[in-house]
Amino acid sequence: MGQTTIKDVARRAGFSFQTVSLVLNHPEKVARTTRVTIEAAMRDLDFVPSLAARALRKKPSRSIACVSCLGAETADDGPDPAPEEDQGLVLQTFAQVTDQHGYTLILRRCRSDDPESMARIASLVSEARVDGLVVFAERRDDPLIALLQAKRVPFVVFGLDVPGTHCAARADRDAIHEAVTYLARTGSRAIGFLGGARAAERLRGYRDALAEADLPLRADLVVACDWTAAGGYRAALALLDRPARPDAIVAANDRVAFGVLKALHDRGVRVPGEIRVVGFDNVAQGAYAIPSLTSIAVPTLDMVRFAFATLVAVIEGTRPPDDLARKLFSTRLVLRESTAAQAQP
Amino acid sequence: MGQTTIKDVARRAGFSFQTVSLVLNHPEKVARTTRVTIEAAMRDLDFVPSLAARALRKKPSRSIACVSCLGAETADDGPDPAPEEDQGLVLQTFAQVTDQHGYTLILRRCRSDDPESMARIASLVSEARVDGLVVFAERRDDPLIALLQAKRVPFVVFGLDVPGTHCAARADRDAIHEAVTYLARTGSRAIGFLGGARAAERLRGYRDALAEADLPLRADLVVACDWTAAGGYRAALALLDRPARPDAIVAANDRVAFGVLKALHDRGVRVPGEIRVVGFDNVAQGAYAIPSLTSIAVPTLDMVRFAFATLVAVIEGTRPPDDLARKLFSTRLVLRESTAAQAQP
Repeated sequence: MGQTTIKDVARRAGFSFQTVSLVLNHPEKVARTTRVTIEAAMRDLDFVPSLAARALRKKPSRSIACVSCLGAETADDGPDPAPEEDQGLVLQTFAQVTDQHGYTLILRRCRSDDPESMARIASLVSEARVDGLVVFAERRDDPLIALLQAKRVPFVVFGLDVPGTHCAARADRDAIHEAVTYLARTGSRAIGFLGGARAAERLRGYRDALAEADLPLRADLVVACDWTAAGGYRAALALLDRPARPDAIVAANDRVAFGVLKALHDRGVRVPGEIRVVGFDNVAQGAYAIPSLTSIAVPTLDMVRFAFATLVAVIEGTRPPDDLARKLFSTRLVLRESTAAQAQP
Repeated sequence: MGQTTIKDVARRAGFSFQTVSLVLNHPEKVARTTRVTIEAAMRDLDFVPSLAARALRKKPSRSIACVSCLGAETADDGPDPAPEEDQGLVLQTFAQVTDQHGYTLILRRCRSDDPESMARIASLVSEARVDGLVVFAERRDDPLIALLQAKRVPFVVFGLDVPGTHCAARADRDAIHEAVTYLARTGSRAIGFLGGARAAERLRGYRDALAEADLPLRADLVVACDWTAAGGYRAALALLDRPARPDAIVAANDRVAFGVLKALHDRGVRVPGEIRVVGFDNVAQGAYAIPSLTSIAVPTLDMVRFAFATLVAVIEGTRPPDDLARKLFSTRLVLRESTAAQAQP
């Protein structure tokens, strides 16, 4: 059957489709009784106006917005929450790619616990200020995603694999699985994991790899921490103070790993001799850590290019709305000094 | 006398100022002969239309753009030039501050060696897509700045002290002066400097401080390098291979300093025992370097707030165009392990 259209609504309400269109785009120009009748017909038919179609009828803005979702957790972190810092390089890559294609990039933040904040994001497209959105969400159930789907706003999710959406996702589970499997095969027996609520997929990779390597999952080796160097420093000290120390630590990202290296250094623990360390993101600086840091390289530029190309195809209508573009990008474990194989078993 | 206005043009051409306004805003609606006459009057009087005034007559966009100038030097650096990475935190701070004030932030890049690229930036305001610009330039004579001045586009320069413009500048010269003076007072006698063409102001601070401390300016201790960890690593090795080693190194930024620490570690040189190291920017990670890194803290949030408030005042006309808002922001030397005073003189 397909989606209910503006013509179905017009037929049901007994008005021309031009009048229905006016209700959608300039309701203030329509007599109240007419508007009420047409809105009732929309409800009866479960009609959802296509924002993409509405925006296209206007002049395309050739702009897209990158929207960072701030959950209650991040919003409370003060003026400079760490998760956003992580996006610096990604946003600059988006600025570069959009620029190369003659598009303008807009940066917005969305408080997903605030309906008004979410409505303002959706209205960026209905007001034709941008043609589509790239959404940086931390959780699959972020309410902004459901809102954008309901309003049929063209959008792509970046970094996270959200069912039912176009997305450029990182294979987080596989990334950590590879790192933990490598550590287990090369002699580590007590592998710690520093993450937190945001690291669910990574934690899954950790658990799966331990099970496959016949290593026990020890609750005392899994520590929640902020995704900052300070968080890694504190979490590593906490691990060292426990009765049975780990012989390897996998950190949620490189920043956390730098904090871990510092904590081990301050306590006189040799890396990799006594404890091996793995980061995530493979930031340029990791090669210059002391010791240089084994990490997981993410193909950021490829992911940005895919997300942008997908969004443009959706905006321009060359990709049908139900043909979801979903790609899980593989990472690569980059071995450096911090995980050199141990002489002892 | 003041600037030529639209009324002067109208008087000279013999038309109403409304017609002159039409030529400026909707030339297609004006008869050709009328337009030619009015345009001739504009040329005769050296009339420059105020883009701010024109943009204001339209609906304000409540958007501003951060424009990164890519010089020939940076443009050739490939897909991911280091100078832009430096802007990650600053851009995110702009995203946060604009968001708090209900403004939208747009990111654009400008190739200052390409007139078309510059014209597109200027047209962001004339087309009322943004109300004003924040310009990230590396050089005071960046041609974009002159173009924006000529077209009377509302803009603020960020990070650099450019005469004749509104600017939020970092006191680069004073920052390095303070660091070198501190090193000299606490025993360093052969202080190296890692910078490059972009570090002219910092180099001036270095020279002035050496002169005041009665230390010779040694050409062999000043090394140009990329502003990356890799650049710092290579430059530090070059310094170590020279006949007379430095006993301290001041790096262009923290990233460079991390590369220096790694190079000294790899060569078995003790920090701070044999060589002391200072960075610039005071990134969060510096406290977790091995040893922790002395660095120069920049009040980024204050600078962003000042630049934004200035730009809004210019856009809204509450600040007269000739009343330049120019502020030089002081930095702060943050002492950590990498410059602990030496026991030996």
